[in-house]
Amino acid sequence: MDPERFARQRDFILEIDKEKLVQRQTHLTHQGRREDDAEHAWHMTVMAYLLREYANEPFDLARTMVMTLTHDLVEIYAGDTYAYDQAGQADAEQRERSAAERLYAKLPQDQADDLRAIWEEFEANQTPEAHFAHAMDNLQPMLLNDSNDGGDWKLHGVRRAGPAGRNEVTRKGSTQLADYVDRRLDAQVRAGNLLPDEDGEPVARTSYVKR
Amino acid sequence: MDPERFARQRDFILEIDKEKLVQRQTHLTHQGRREDDAEHAWHMTVMAYLLREYANEPFDLARTMVMTLTHDLVEIYAGDTYAYDQAGQADAEQRERSAAERLYAKLPQDQADDLRAIWEEFEANQTPEAHFAHAMDNLQPMLLNDSNDGGDWKLHGVRRAGPAGRNEVTRKGSTQLADYVDRRLDAQVRAGNLLPDEDGEPVARTSYVKR
Repeated sequence: MDPERFARQRDFILEIDKEKLVQRQTHLTHQGRREDDAEHAWHMTVMAYLLREYANEPFDLARTMVMTLTHDLVEIYAGDTYAYDQAGQADAEQRERSAAERLYAKLPQDQADDLRAIWEEFEANQTPEAHFAHAMDNLQPMLLNDSNDGGDWKLHGVRRAGPAGRNEVTRKGSTQLADYVDRRLDAQVRAGNLLPDEDGEPVARTSYVKR
Repeated sequence: MDPERFARQRDFILEIDKEKLVQRQTHLTHQGRREDDAEHAWHMTVMAYLLREYANEPFDLARTMVMTLTHDLVEIYAGDTYAYDQAGQADAEQRERSAAERLYAKLPQDQADDLRAIWEEFEANQTPEAHFAHAMDNLQPMLLNDSNDGGDWKLHGVRRAGPAGRNEVTRKGSTQLADYVDRRLDAQVRAGNLLPDEDGEPVARTSYVKR
């Protein structure tokens, strides 16, 4: 063991403990408290394993799991931006890119390059691994929210176009899971838990940028 | 998609959301709040990726990651048993075995058998994958606690024999990481944050069984 190398790895491991303090807008099942980024990453990675049979293309499971586990680490410095917050999304990319520079510089160079490349691959969303990782990133909060009678959508005044737009990203990873989500969104509109679309209206009434 | 099969998978995914409510004794870095099982599983799985170069033997990364992500699911029903709680550990195995029966029965049979086998492999600790998973399971709270001046050990009146005993399990997965931990335990005894060993004394003064 090279003590200096291990010290950098250990310090990075302790630094990412802060991911447990990044709050998301999604609430746990049974109308529980809001979840944090570490819990979300854990849940969607277990889902990637359990639901891999629905992927459109064969994919490298280990790489996808590393991707789903680490894709939100930049939010330790950049904060979580609510999916339907159009103002926040506008500058989220630059905030997250700066955060990636700062965070991954703590690792030994080879590991910094590796994790940075996995994050860039997730962001670019051009590989089977990234497609399925995005499908899990979208499906995880959707399942929780669906189980809570759309509580998060009601809280933020979300229209069907919001989750439906995200679902088109899910479709790149899994048409079967995207078809399931479309049916659930229709059901939630009928139940009055998700607003129908109206031309020219924003996808959410509220803005929740965290910096 | 077989709707009945997917419904079982979805219901299992929603059921394991409860892992986020299983509190552990370990506190987050910077003397933060206590962490939960989902956060612990996320953290130790990222660690398995970052520290894999220190494993004693080659191992299947994807299998180890699934193992570290799911090894505590039984605690949703069995509760977390503090590592140095000798009374609690005595019946933890039976509680966890009953919990595994109940939990995995919710999945389609093939996936129930698969996840149950991965959990049994972790418990038996006879494979390279299980050895490294146990090393991460022990190292993760040790690193947090070490960064907190041994706060959790002080709270529970833990003697060196407690974490030192766990560290012999870590050694099966990584002698290099176990050697590092031994040095840190010595340093924490010298700093007065961990009690020295005395013949015949229990490894912890307090008992914290959660059921």
